[in-house]
Amino acid sequence: MFYLVGLGLCDEKDITLRGLEVVKSATRVYLEAYTSILMVNKDRLEEFYGRELILADRDMVETESDAILAGSDSADVALLVVGDPFGATTHADILLRARALNIPFRIIHNASIMNAVGACGLQLYNFGQTVSIPFWTETWKPDSWLARIVENMEKGMHTLVLLDIKVKEQNEENLARGRKIYEPPRYMSPQTAISQIISALLSSPSPLMSPATTLAVTLSRVGGTAQKILSGSLEELAALGEADFGDPLHSMVIVGSRLHPMEIDYAGEFAVGEGWRKVARDVHGVVGEEGV
Amino acid sequence: MFYLVGLGLCDEKDITLRGLEVVKSATRVYLEAYTSILMVNKDRLEEFYGRELILADRDMVETESDAILAGSDSADVALLVVGDPFGATTHADILLRARALNIPFRIIHNASIMNAVGACGLQLYNFGQTVSIPFWTETWKPDSWLARIVENMEKGMHTLVLLDIKVKEQNEENLARGRKIYEPPRYMSPQTAISQIISALLSSPSPLMSPATTLAVTLSRVGGTAQKILSGSLEELAALGEADFGDPLHSMVIVGSRLHPMEIDYAGEFAVGEGWRKVARDVHGVVGEEGV
Repeated sequence: MFYLVGLGLCDEKDITLRGLEVVKSATRVYLEAYTSILMVNKDRLEEFYGRELILADRDMVETESDAILAGSDSADVALLVVGDPFGATTHADILLRARALNIPFRIIHNASIMNAVGACGLQLYNFGQTVSIPFWTETWKPDSWLARIVENMEKGMHTLVLLDIKVKEQNEENLARGRKIYEPPRYMSPQTAISQIISALLSSPSPLMSPATTLAVTLSRVGGTAQKILSGSLEELAALGEADFGDPLHSMVIVGSRLHPMEIDYAGEFAVGEGWRKVARDVHGVVGEEGV
Repeated sequence: MFYLVGLGLCDEKDITLRGLEVVKSATRVYLEAYTSILMVNKDRLEEFYGRELILADRDMVETESDAILAGSDSADVALLVVGDPFGATTHADILLRARALNIPFRIIHNASIMNAVGACGLQLYNFGQTVSIPFWTETWKPDSWLARIVENMEKGMHTLVLLDIKVKEQNEENLARGRKIYEPPRYMSPQTAISQIISALLSSPSPLMSPATTLAVTLSRVGGTAQKILSGSLEELAALGEADFGDPLHSMVIVGSRLHPMEIDYAGEFAVGEGWRKVARDVHGVVGEEGV
């Protein structure tokens, strides 16, 4: 059997008991390298699980899936991934390959940002499609994600915004010389994301969004003891410093107009200024349960 | 500290290691009665966790939250809920109450249908708002959920459809006599849901939906060993018998037009007939990666 095991959000204790059983009994256990975005490293996971893990980067999962799957028709093999296994299309790919090879497989689900975003108090059932914002460069500033946010806004829905992560990037010199030397990982901060959103709105304005009248919530290190959530207008959040958000991983929500008073109150606790309740009241016509 | 602990989708082994630590060490542990929708009962959970659990029905969580929270400013108290704690607004309520009482709290996240629905191969980032379909009666046939599905369809997004669960319902006689005798729990089947969707479409037609041209995926017992997923047109799925879906819990997805070839292929494995690939090709203009 081939097992795809979700590790959850933060550290070694977020695995489920069922997942841990698989890790302990499988003949080979691969750890997807994106797992570097967990708050712990491979050594700590190996020590905690009491076994060796084989590091598999995203390339390997995509291009060498047959090597990972080898032998799993007769013995148990596991691939551990951060969050839930269905967070990335790569994992549907390896399962399609397993099917083609007649290898039975099972998914061990876990929390992912797609459901843990509920921690900010905005109701999960009112989220529309999810977007990812990539790091802009001097010459490459894609903004197709903005149209998706606006589509959600047109229907009053919230948007979960995933912020770019760059791991195993080579600088131009190393790339040109074919040297497999990688830059340190980079994680987009909410500040960078908000500044890209505000720039994108300047090139592609929407009557439904502006820095002063669009509400957002930032979520940092969701599920961990150092979790931090902040809410306010884009303008207010843009005025904060990096230190206000702290270490990665970050994500954010652009808030839709179909707000419930309880959402105002719950996320209002994280407000960095007056903007949260002011915009909710003046723009969306919604006040909290205490009437403010 | 007050802990809200997600139990995940299926049984006692879906709790995380962090969640289990809390269960073992807390002074009191409440089990939300909706937990009857887990595939195991309270006795089995108590035996597995090695401790007594206090049953708390939804009413108690809503109206007696102070009793549940009592003492959690100085000792650890836990409330166990199915799935992830942010699946129900009730849980935001008890956390708002904890805040008002200055009680520190922490959430232990887990998988829920909101992210595990990815198991059907449709991409999570392309889901719009979620709807719940309630059981219709002879005289009460609400269909406001249809407008929400159509809103998602207008933007090409998929819709997760949660099917009604009736627990602790009294029949008319017991209700009239004030006897706390409850009917057996009822879980909506995909058949009932589809027949309500088709009826609702007759009263409120949409050019974007019809039994023959709307694709759906049903998911039963997600995450368990008896998980079953079926895909096809509404018409095809409506023609199946209850036995084809098997025991509860069920949920379903109404498929949007913005389909990726990999979604066609992955969910195509669950197709009950020709409808899945035919509608994808003829209505949405999308074929799988092999060109069919």
